[in-house]
Amino acid sequence: MDRKAPDAARRSERSRRAIFEAALSLVGEVGYQRLTVEGIAARAGVGKQTIYRWWPSKADVLLDAFTADADVEGYAAGLPDSGDLAADLKAVLRATVDEFRDPAFQAPYRALAAAGAADEQLSARFVERLLEPGMRAYVERLRAAQEAGEIAAWVDPRIAAEMVLSPFSQRWLMRTGELTYSFTDSLVDTALAGFRPRPS
Amino acid sequence: MDRKAPDAARRSERSRRAIFEAALSLVGEVGYQRLTVEGIAARAGVGKQTIYRWWPSKADVLLDAFTADADVEGYAAGLPDSGDLAADLKAVLRATVDEFRDPAFQAPYRALAAAGAADEQLSARFVERLLEPGMRAYVERLRAAQEAGEIAAWVDPRIAAEMVLSPFSQRWLMRTGELTYSFTDSLVDTALAGFRPRPS
Repeated sequence: MDRKAPDAARRSERSRRAIFEAALSLVGEVGYQRLTVEGIAARAGVGKQTIYRWWPSKADVLLDAFTADADVEGYAAGLPDSGDLAADLKAVLRATVDEFRDPAFQAPYRALAAAGAADEQLSARFVERLLEPGMRAYVERLRAAQEAGEIAAWVDPRIAAEMVLSPFSQRWLMRTGELTYSFTDSLVDTALAGFRPRPS
Repeated sequence: MDRKAPDAARRSERSRRAIFEAALSLVGEVGYQRLTVEGIAARAGVGKQTIYRWWPSKADVLLDAFTADADVEGYAAGLPDSGDLAADLKAVLRATVDEFRDPAFQAPYRALAAAGAADEQLSARFVERLLEPGMRAYVERLRAAQEAGEIAAWVDPRIAAEMVLSPFSQRWLMRTGELTYSFTDSLVDTALAGFRPRPS
């Protein structure tokens, strides 16, 4: 048995975590444009070759750092389904309000979103890795509610999901309004009141 | 009578237009970070003191350049009101799809939006001068429809306006989906079907 392998794996995992933490804190401080692989390496206490061995660019480090986040992994498991669509959506959106108010989460996410808005290549990967899995979780939860008869058959779950999520994203990204529980509750209530099946 | 005054006014207006065109074309080419008052002055064929006489910063030039645009002034006059809410919203959103597909409009607007996403001070002015007047025009059109009995009394026009407009803005800014007439028509149909008064 080779006893070194597990130690090496633990060391790698420690370096990987340190690199992720360095990338997320640095991009929040200096912005995406001024973030460099050298800067990440210095803060993480590793050589830059260690980073280049695993990731071709700073964008790849950042996207992996975000994806390693528990909330993003949470999306892959889908939204909660208690059988009460309104309660589930409100709970998830309230948790999202908390998350987006947390500076440690917000600063790097905003830096990446702003850079993605300007840079088409980066945004394609940002969408694929982060935005689309989140949206898909909402679409699937709405489709399940539709199958359960909670929302009407004529509703397109994708359009419905965008009508619930995009006002939140837009308020956050462009700072067009407050992000409060009362706002997200209203979004859910307004959408669901409209999407309820009507007695025929 | 002083015959020079009208000539001076015409020259000023010509310079102002040249400065706006230079600012809008340059920011689309180099991005907001690398845009400078010197660069705008050089392209417009004026001295940079001419710009500083009228505007304190590049952000002010850009915001005025956008606001001078006919479509933004159009918002101040409100959305069309033919008495058919669905037709009016679809027409305005289809025109917006065309506008956001036009590279001459899109590139500078995107540069400014991306910079605003990262810069809180800039975004406050971007919202006040551009985003909020547009949103308000939708809110007022929805409120008029509510008074005419086209949408139900329980609907909050502000939330409803965000549910129609933000999915469009989000798809455009983060490139999360296609901007087609079929998408904007769906948004209008889905929202209005939900917001129609129900027979009691």
